[in-house]
Amino acid sequence: MRALLALFLCILPLSASAETIENSVRRVLEKQQAAWNAHDLQSFLSGYWNSPALTFFSGATVTTGWQATLERYQKTYQGEGHEMGKLEFSELNIQPLGAEAAFVRGAWHLTMSDGKTPHGLFTLVFRKFPEGWKIVHDHTSAAE
Amino acid sequence: MRALLALFLCILPLSASAETIENSVRRVLEKQQAAWNAHDLQSFLSGYWNSPALTFFSGATVTTGWQATLERYQKTYQGEGHEMGKLEFSELNIQPLGAEAAFVRGAWHLTMSDGKTPHGLFTLVFRKFPEGWKIVHDHTSAAE
Repeated sequence: MRALLALFLCILPLSASAETIENSVRRVLEKQQAAWNAHDLQSFLSGYWNSPALTFFSGATVTTGWQATLERYQKTYQGEGHEMGKLEFSELNIQPLGAEAAFVRGAWHLTMSDGKTPHGLFTLVFRKFPEGWKIVHDHTSAAE
Repeated sequence: MRALLALFLCILPLSASAETIENSVRRVLEKQQAAWNAHDLQSFLSGYWNSPALTFFSGATVTTGWQATLERYQKTYQGEGHEMGKLEFSELNIQPLGAEAAFVRGAWHLTMSDGKTPHGLFTLVFRKFPEGWKIVHDHTSAAE
């Protein structure tokens, strides 16, 4: 009986919170999209885990740490001759993995002022921290 | 007291199994590498979840389902004028996410008979099934 109660107490919060997890993660992504389109990289980056252990994969390049990830974005989208464009996320598929993690599959699409539309896919791993849900790993790829 | 016991029963199996999870997932990857180098795609593909819900991201292309993933591999590596080469995984970082999921960051490196060495990165999401740990999502990218 006691074991059954323990089992019940373990399972209940997990299943009850799936929708909550999905909503929380979706809000982070909506906030990121809005921040990008306001050209506010600092706010965009607040969706990422502020840790030296954050990882960002693109092509064959590994970027490690929050600060290096910010600098990569600054160089790629705010450097000389670069622009951020208008960002749109689509086809979001948010899957909880237990009570404190989730992964997200989705597509990204940029519209630049010259009419170019770089686009591709991303996979994000989220973890729940006291300060909220944060991306701990991002794998992004682009159309060739 | 009863709540404390429940909490203890919830946490204990999670922390005790982190090493077990890592070992189980690593064995799947070792088996995949060996299967690839034996040019046995069917065995390589047995590391993937045999489901229409399996997803494989590469560049801007989404492949959905186990069968389509097998066919993509057959076309890319066993079609006319193609070869599988020698595969090596490296820099594997296996992170459990709760008791029944994990994600893997790693690098892949192929050595072809003409001396070319396609390589890149991957992110894998694993889930635990009655038949073992399987990849439910693969995001692979290559050096440009």
